[in-house]
Amino acid sequence: MTRRYVTVSIFLIGTEITRGIIADTHGPLLARELSILGYHINRIVIIPDDGSIEPMLRQALQDSDIILLTGGLGPTSDDITRHVVAKLAGVPLVQDEGAFAELYTRIGSRIYGANQRQVCFPEGFTVISNPKGTAPGFWGEIVTSPESRSVLCYAMPGPPVEMHEMFYHRILPELAQLAGHDDTEVTEFSCFLTPESKLEEVCGECAMGGIQWGTRVQEHRISLYLHGGTQESRGFMAQEIGKQLGFGLLVTGDVEGVDLLSNLLVQQKFKMVCAESCTGGLVSKLMTDLDGSSAWFWGGVVSYANQAKETLLGVSSSTIETCGAVSEESVLEMAQGLLRLAQVDFSVSVSGIAGSGGGTKEKPVGTVWFGFASPTIPAIAVKLNFSSYGRASVRRRAALAAILLSYFYLKGADLLDIVSTWQYI
Amino acid sequence: MTRRYVTVSIFLIGTEITRGIIADTHGPLLARELSILGYHINRIVIIPDDGSIEPMLRQALQDSDIILLTGGLGPTSDDITRHVVAKLAGVPLVQDEGAFAELYTRIGSRIYGANQRQVCFPEGFTVISNPKGTAPGFWGEIVTSPESRSVLCYAMPGPPVEMHEMFYHRILPELAQLAGHDDTEVTEFSCFLTPESKLEEVCGECAMGGIQWGTRVQEHRISLYLHGGTQESRGFMAQEIGKQLGFGLLVTGDVEGVDLLSNLLVQQKFKMVCAESCTGGLVSKLMTDLDGSSAWFWGGVVSYANQAKETLLGVSSSTIETCGAVSEESVLEMAQGLLRLAQVDFSVSVSGIAGSGGGTKEKPVGTVWFGFASPTIPAIAVKLNFSSYGRASVRRRAALAAILLSYFYLKGADLLDIVSTWQYI
Repeated sequence: MTRRYVTVSIFLIGTEITRGIIADTHGPLLARELSILGYHINRIVIIPDDGSIEPMLRQALQDSDIILLTGGLGPTSDDITRHVVAKLAGVPLVQDEGAFAELYTRIGSRIYGANQRQVCFPEGFTVISNPKGTAPGFWGEIVTSPESRSVLCYAMPGPPVEMHEMFYHRILPELAQLAGHDDTEVTEFSCFLTPESKLEEVCGECAMGGIQWGTRVQEHRISLYLHGGTQESRGFMAQEIGKQLGFGLLVTGDVEGVDLLSNLLVQQKFKMVCAESCTGGLVSKLMTDLDGSSAWFWGGVVSYANQAKETLLGVSSSTIETCGAVSEESVLEMAQGLLRLAQVDFSVSVSGIAGSGGGTKEKPVGTVWFGFASPTIPAIAVKLNFSSYGRASVRRRAALAAILLSYFYLKGADLLDIVSTWQYI
Repeated sequence: MTRRYVTVSIFLIGTEITRGIIADTHGPLLARELSILGYHINRIVIIPDDGSIEPMLRQALQDSDIILLTGGLGPTSDDITRHVVAKLAGVPLVQDEGAFAELYTRIGSRIYGANQRQVCFPEGFTVISNPKGTAPGFWGEIVTSPESRSVLCYAMPGPPVEMHEMFYHRILPELAQLAGHDDTEVTEFSCFLTPESKLEEVCGECAMGGIQWGTRVQEHRISLYLHGGTQESRGFMAQEIGKQLGFGLLVTGDVEGVDLLSNLLVQQKFKMVCAESCTGGLVSKLMTDLDGSSAWFWGGVVSYANQAKETLLGVSSSTIETCGAVSEESVLEMAQGLLRLAQVDFSVSVSGIAGSGGGTKEKPVGTVWFGFASPTIPAIAVKLNFSSYGRASVRRRAALAAILLSYFYLKGADLLDIVSTWQYI
């Protein structure tokens, strides 16, 4: 089926928004709901109530199939939407008797000039009643010239409670029908430990016909959205991307690394501890961000100074002297030392060079060792060499790597195998 | 003085926004700051990365004096801002050698095609360096035809941390000057532990003729900008605001809480430790965010489970049984226990109810005790009752309060007096 209506322009009218007094929330909501239905949003425009909408609306008529308007319907001097739409449609404004009767029922003889204007609509347009307020919405066709193309135009009131009611109950169902499908065309993935530019590059290399991608950089991951194609082809493309990034770095859905680990700990009825040096408490902080974390998180030690590694964790001074604090031996002693103290099920440790100082030729900034210990799984240490994009970035990636590797360790995977596939950390 | 530049169009480029995947926050911020300076915003337009900006930008050139663009500068396939601006200005793109050298310093031989495009700019435009990322911004004039009117065009990167840095430190001062405000007419303050709505309310109550204010919400503080008036009157207004918020919660300049404490520790040649329960490592994390933190930070313990408080810090089980883990007695034993182990100059502890569960009538969610100990200053504990805006917010405010109170403790201030003045935490 060829879709007749594909491209949508959204206009939000409100001087409070262009003055920065309130932030718009309608744009994101409309854009999200329409994108899910497969519509393409070609603009979201926020404009003052001063009538300057007309040239912009005229431009949008040339390249859009549907126009959604919110605001500018209220009983105030800046009520302009109905006038501009009537002008562009080339029709007069006429009073709707049904809407007038409904308004009369609602406010009785308090109807006055401004309110009465609210029940006037562009001739030929359909009134959409507003159960939550006095200003009804309306919709109808505007025929463009010279192409004589029909553009659907929907006008809704601005106040959120009125707009939501009208959009979700009247307009969205119509637009879903027009879109002619109810299968969602988007699949979401979560990508860890990969720079945005690399993810883009890899998406380009794995691109498949009909599939577009979008990314959203978050604090500890990038959300990747694949649009179009079939669900199967999107899954196949994601698989190819995942292979190039490395084992476990692309997972389906809206998932944080801490969710993977905490869900596994709950499932295994395990409690964990962590001993951190360069991450300075970030692993503990992330694990305790989650509500209910006392069920799986026992505690942690931030052994920042070498003396703290000895005093608080029992790392031997000779290990630190011989191998250094950033070494396989030290992270193993850190993890095992804390496990012995805490008597819990699992311990992870981190020690590395976060920068900006402290790097050497053998251990440059970005070198991080991780240790893992448990009463039931053999202890192991692995090293990662992060590209140095600055101290905060090395710390953030090291903390996330500690969490992901903990997950794989508890799953019984071979951590050395896994990290050998990680391409772009 | 007649203002030459009055009307501003704002363009935000990002397909993640028009797909409703993320909500725009730049539009409200730019609109607010420019409105404060007396500019008129005639449109805020959000568009996809597909090049469709060109006709809309052409239209905006006809009715605007200034155009602000964000996004579309990144190292990805959808990087289009520089091309469209060059086209509208009628000039070629040329590589800027200074920007290339800066990028090379930053990422070295990892420069490849996509990154290299980031250092090309419309000929005749001025590069604006980007200390927080790889894509510099730029600004210049576009002369319209046929009127030969000059329109100023500023392009900034999209990621918030990069855009904020560039806007507040480079572009806003220029626009303030253009608006006839002197650069010296703005004073910046940092406000801690106060909700934005309360700060706005207090600013309104303390308002003085000729002074306008703007706020910028950051992760651990709100930046407050007072514009207009004299430096003296702005200082006086700030003093009044500070009095209403409480002692030490409004400081002059662009200052984080961790800066106050770490500078004092450096000055006193002190090392600190911290014992955290509800903040779960966040205090340690914040103190070690800073480069060179090993000079003043020895280590920390995240004693999340009660057993961890006993095992790792030596808190007595009878104290926890009798008084509870969230009590004056427990935080004092936590702080003193860690101080004894570490043998350093200062120890701070935190134990509270972050939520969502765990609250009782006597100790509701938001109750947090703080302990302070040192070999040279008598130990003390203070309690705060944070309004509960959710677990993450309680934890963030508790960590910041621990840091600010540590600063005042080491300054020899009376902590009970101080917290009694804190009005809106």
